[in-house]
Amino acid sequence: MSVLDMSKSIRRVAIVGGTHGNEWTGIYLVEKFQKSPKAIQRSSFETVTLLANPAAIAINQRYVDRDLNRCFDPQDLNNATLTGYENTQAKAIAAALGQNDASKVDFIIDLHSSTANMGLTLLPASQHPFNLQLMAHLCAQNPDVRVCCGIQSHQSSPMLRSIAPFGCTVEVGAIAQGVLDAYRFQQTEQIIHTILDYLDAVNNNNVQATSSSLMIYQSIESIDYPRTKTGALDGMIHPQRQGKDYEPLEPGDPLFLTFSGETIVYQGRSIVFPIFINEAAYYEKGIAMTLTEQQQIKIAEIV
Amino acid sequence: MSVLDMSKSIRRVAIVGGTHGNEWTGIYLVEKFQKSPKAIQRSSFETVTLLANPAAIAINQRYVDRDLNRCFDPQDLNNATLTGYENTQAKAIAAALGQNDASKVDFIIDLHSSTANMGLTLLPASQHPFNLQLMAHLCAQNPDVRVCCGIQSHQSSPMLRSIAPFGCTVEVGAIAQGVLDAYRFQQTEQIIHTILDYLDAVNNNNVQATSSSLMIYQSIESIDYPRTKTGALDGMIHPQRQGKDYEPLEPGDPLFLTFSGETIVYQGRSIVFPIFINEAAYYEKGIAMTLTEQQQIKIAEIV
Repeated sequence: MSVLDMSKSIRRVAIVGGTHGNEWTGIYLVEKFQKSPKAIQRSSFETVTLLANPAAIAINQRYVDRDLNRCFDPQDLNNATLTGYENTQAKAIAAALGQNDASKVDFIIDLHSSTANMGLTLLPASQHPFNLQLMAHLCAQNPDVRVCCGIQSHQSSPMLRSIAPFGCTVEVGAIAQGVLDAYRFQQTEQIIHTILDYLDAVNNNNVQATSSSLMIYQSIESIDYPRTKTGALDGMIHPQRQGKDYEPLEPGDPLFLTFSGETIVYQGRSIVFPIFINEAAYYEKGIAMTLTEQQQIKIAEIV
Repeated sequence: MSVLDMSKSIRRVAIVGGTHGNEWTGIYLVEKFQKSPKAIQRSSFETVTLLANPAAIAINQRYVDRDLNRCFDPQDLNNATLTGYENTQAKAIAAALGQNDASKVDFIIDLHSSTANMGLTLLPASQHPFNLQLMAHLCAQNPDVRVCCGIQSHQSSPMLRSIAPFGCTVEVGAIAQGVLDAYRFQQTEQIIHTILDYLDAVNNNNVQATSSSLMIYQSIESIDYPRTKTGALDGMIHPQRQGKDYEPLEPGDPLFLTFSGETIVYQGRSIVFPIFINEAAYYEKGIAMTLTEQQQIKIAEIV
């Protein structure tokens, strides 16, 4: 059985780093691949690399004007009034990798890191069975892999990964911004090779096993830190929750510690699994963590 | 026995945060103290607070033009040609806290955090016996405390802490830039109170015990990452060394992993104790880590 209609075989893959300019894992991996392109070549498709936000990389900041990884909503890509650096960059990237017949890619691997203890997390670009089969394969290869699915549909996603039909974000952590962590660097490099090998096997109709289901963490909602009436930060992740991404959060468990020493507990009704806990870039977005549910989802057959 | 000539009693103490604008522990602690000043009041001295680099805090960056904590060398403070934001700020802080009779402080606590796994490190402003007695007291109160001494003499130090006769930097980690870690926040708050209580006891001639010696980590040298011929980064902290601040480094131990996969080992002749391993702000300073030696030093009697 093929996991992909061969008329839609993978012809071009993009490995993207530096979508956020202070997440060094992807930046230095892409630079490594650019110096040694043979490592990412496979016989059945072309692999291209991209440093997505060079101006942000140059100043070691997440972005210049606006988060590039929130600029790929089709409405924004078609909005001529959006002319800031990242909006312009997003349009150029979407045109090159998503729209131009000569250069468009079928699969994007977008490399990120987080100050949250995300371990080795994959965020598929969509829940298309092809993406989910790949996720199941990667989970089988490496039990440390966790798969997280967002609420957004593929069509309206503002993420860079959404401009290709297939792909995923790789999110590793905890890593501070502007540093390299060799263990996570190697882990990211390894999973890129596993993905490339899988895509090559798909093209060669040589995928040995397929899965009928997959365990994912489905995002439910994001919650903010305690704030004062004027919106200033009024507390922190509770010390018993700090670094505990993917660990079950039960009703009544400590969630935040206010600056005055008060513990705020989780008041939901069911067990959830928080992720992106204390991500530095999300303070300004009003996100202290994202709550997820574990779900065993069926993978539809590919017809 | 008094640990301080009472003619030199502590009259004014400054608690400083935000010397680096992206090290939030000190910033939010100072803001907390500014809202609740009673917490840091003691009967025998005045406590003042300062956010040292408000422009850097506003943009959540270490600095605007230049590292403020390298601007306090007396030569620079007296150099009228240095007119950048941090040089100007340093002169204003030195004038207020170090030179103006009405406002100058006897003791500075400068609050920092590091992306390196520094635990709870104290860097005394000088090896004056008074500072060392305090360090010994803090080590006795909390076995997690480590004391690190630099190479620079007090007189030529460019650090903010050097503008007062006594004091120390508190350096906690690992904390990513631009986040709060509640455990380290509480730990820093606790040691501030222990310091204030000790200074109050000194003023009241009520210090119960003194120490004749102290175990310190003495800085020997800082070493840089592997670099290419053009100076670009060519490797990372070795995964076996990442996060292992204060753990002994023996000749032959792995130190770096180059991007091409080569392990670089430590080629020194004696056991050293690296600190500030993978501090984000030190990549630009050419510092991958600072090597220290453990030393048991004698504390001279105060006459």
